Amino acid sequence: MAGDALTHDLAALVGGEHVLAGDTADYVADSTRTMGLVGRADAVVLPGSADEAAAVVAWCYERGVAIVPRGGGTGFSGGATPVHGGVVVSTERLDRVRSFDPLLWRMQVEAGVRTATVHRLARENGLCFPVDPGASETSRIGGNVATNAGGPHTFKYGVMRAWVSGVEAVLAPGELLSVGGPARKDVAGYDLTGLLCGSEGTLGLITAVWLKLMPAPPVALPVCGFFADAEAGVAAIEALLGSGVVPAAVEYLDAGALRAAGSTFPGGMPAGAGFLVIAEADGSEDEADELAEAIGPDARRPDPGELWRWRGGVSLAVIAQRGGKLSDDIAVPLDRLAEAIEGTVEIGARHGLEACSWGHAGDGNVHATFLLAPDDEDEVRRAEAAAQDAFALAVALGGTVSAEHGLGWLKRGQLRRQWAPAAVAAHRAIKVALDPRGLFNPGKKEP
Amino acid sequence: MAGDALTHDLAALVGGEHVLAGDTADYVADSTRTMGLVGRADAVVLPGSADEAAAVVAWCYERGVAIVPRGGGTGFSGGATPVHGGVVVSTERLDRVRSFDPLLWRMQVEAGVRTATVHRLARENGLCFPVDPGASETSRIGGNVATNAGGPHTFKYGVMRAWVSGVEAVLAPGELLSVGGPARKDVAGYDLTGLLCGSEGTLGLITAVWLKLMPAPPVALPVCGFFADAEAGVAAIEALLGSGVVPAAVEYLDAGALRAAGSTFPGGMPAGAGFLVIAEADGSEDEADELAEAIGPDARRPDPGELWRWRGGVSLAVIAQRGGKLSDDIAVPLDRLAEAIEGTVEIGARHGLEACSWGHAGDGNVHATFLLAPDDEDEVRRAEAAAQDAFALAVALGGTVSAEHGLGWLKRGQLRRQWAPAAVAAHRAIKVALDPRGLFNPGKKEP
Repeated sequence: MAGDALTHDLAALVGGEHVLAGDTADYVADSTRTMGLVGRADAVVLPGSADEAAAVVAWCYERGVAIVPRGGGTGFSGGATPVHGGVVVSTERLDRVRSFDPLLWRMQVEAGVRTATVHRLARENGLCFPVDPGASETSRIGGNVATNAGGPHTFKYGVMRAWVSGVEAVLAPGELLSVGGPARKDVAGYDLTGLLCGSEGTLGLITAVWLKLMPAPPVALPVCGFFADAEAGVAAIEALLGSGVVPAAVEYLDAGALRAAGSTFPGGMPAGAGFLVIAEADGSEDEADELAEAIGPDARRPDPGELWRWRGGVSLAVIAQRGGKLSDDIAVPLDRLAEAIEGTVEIGARHGLEACSWGHAGDGNVHATFLLAPDDEDEVRRAEAAAQDAFALAVALGGTVSAEHGLGWLKRGQLRRQWAPAAVAAHRAIKVALDPRGLFNPGKKEP
Repeated sequence: MAGDALTHDLAALVGGEHVLAGDTADYVADSTRTMGLVGRADAVVLPGSADEAAAVVAWCYERGVAIVPRGGGTGFSGGATPVHGGVVVSTERLDRVRSFDPLLWRMQVEAGVRTATVHRLARENGLCFPVDPGASETSRIGGNVATNAGGPHTFKYGVMRAWVSGVEAVLAPGELLSVGGPARKDVAGYDLTGLLCGSEGTLGLITAVWLKLMPAPPVALPVCGFFADAEAGVAAIEALLGSGVVPAAVEYLDAGALRAAGSTFPGGMPAGAGFLVIAEADGSEDEADELAEAIGPDARRPDPGELWRWRGGVSLAVIAQRGGKLSDDIAVPLDRLAEAIEGTVEIGARHGLEACSWGHAGDGNVHATFLLAPDDEDEVRRAEAAAQDAFALAVALGGTVSAEHGLGWLKRGQLRRQWAPAAVAAHRAIKVALDPRGLFNPGKKEP
């Protein structure tokens, strides 16, 4: 279809001012732009309501036009990048809080509401929404659901799926429907809500979600320990799990990550530190004492605000080392964590790259990272080869190629590494069942 | 196929002593036997390994023979009853604990392991598996996963799905596969694990699961309050949610349930009580104090062992009133709880039946119950009509026809009450995609 006719038709559905050119800079890439991934759409559409979103999807589906759902564009896998053209459907105008019942610990928000808004509304009412992905200031809740986002506090409180009691979405061929709702339990149907969580826009377009909330934990008491190496650090992590306390978070930084970010650690980093463990107690001072005992006599108690601000800057500090990085979010069973951390460094060495990692240790979640100068094409190529080795390592250790970022475009097809052909076939059958024309975010996840 | 040939072929797969006659009493009904639901299979097969289970499914699938998966047979919806013949595949010999790493809070168990065994192993190692369905002594973990079971402590800790990090299952046409595993997070593929949770054997046969565990909570401090009526009781429940504490459980009994079970309440029941609220703190004495303050000056602190034993007997005490009952497990948003409780009694009155309810108040989960004499056919018929009204009430209040028991046979097709046609069509598409010949537990859930 000629671009003019497409723009004309879509403008009739959402208003001319809400249809943008397909090369509008803010909509052709996500956080993988720094790696050079920039796409091009046929148009960008900003529906103002779920009904408008359904009309746009129906229009596209009937005509065989691809639909690329877009939230805050903070993804690390290129999931929101329109690599195959089609229509980018941005949820940014679906930004209403439809209902908020603080006394009942629940909220219904449209997909375009910022994750930070959910956090703020909860906090202002003595509540907590415990899913805290890195980019929560700019990411949108629909994107967080579509990637089943996690974060440091996922260790205790679970990923996004655990906090979504219902979803409103547009499925093929343009049907707006709801499953679940404000009730907290429901086993009547298959778990369509769960299926949409983590589907990365390949099964439908999420327009609104029902979220569960909880009372704000009484305290936030981080406890940290520096260790000589990964082996000693991981031993401390296992001691944390044996403390009898459920830590709210268990994070780590390896030697390379500490070289990049350690100098600004609140209170300073001791000489010779090669590994940092961060745990947090959120129940009581007693719990923090138990965690400190597990970490050992040199346990530190930084200010939580300072600590988490510092932790949030680790990724940028690593990038600052050489101007760029290729970073993946593998996860392994906890008893293989040290192997994954040391293996990442070894893979880097094999490819002539400086490598490091940090991440959500309690969940075995390793941000396996290879440093690079973005304009050094050879280095970029070697980093890509190293990333493939990191995926292979994760699977060999019994883990996953993606703990929280999803496969998107950059890791498309990697599922075959970790699932047997019959499981991949089941995955494919679900995709075909719900998107028979293959128009929802084509090429992404497991194409 | 003639019965002899079928028995012969299946015996070759699992051994002759593990193929039983299709009318073997222990395998033709579940807990709905008391309501007269008894089926008949062509054979009952007890595979001794996941590979044998896969061979049985493959044999059946190739020949168009229905497969009826069976766990402990404790279901309340007839999900395990072979109503259409076929082969009952019992998981009872899949009873190995494949691995248990208490220091890493995880366990892999085969589907036939009793839920109580998981509880016991966790407890003996200072851990907790918090999913506590009523029949945990006899139910098997595979059945609990297949129904996505809950229980009193689901309010704080979530349903089974939250505690399963991986599933091994036989899917059509007889493929044994695994998704997930000991890693605690994984967003690489669609959530097949979640899809199998609650699928009630209609998508495949679960042979093993990876379970997450957690440290045993430090205390178990129930706090109870008796109130005049549902309105006052529900106000207390809302006060509990406003206390700032996350109670481990929030349960209730209405006036009718108290008439049946209240006389044996630990410490006795005050005169004039028309509603009981049970909350439990599991973090600290301070939390229990907060809950007691929310409940009011007459809050009681029963012994936890005595209280939960008494609570476990409520259902039998209600049955003892007239010899039988028809009980459903609707759930509603919490702000509609009083309406659901009062509405259940009104529905009973409309059908000339004594009615009562109790359940997991914090999750809005109401066991809407109509008393009956099992040999009074007219009463049974009226109870069935009343149950239909209870389903309609649940949906009208924004809730679900099934919070934890599933649809099985008795509630087959009820999903259409609460999901729009497009959502039911998506449900159907998933069923057809994963079970194209419709041989997994036919007639159940949403046939």
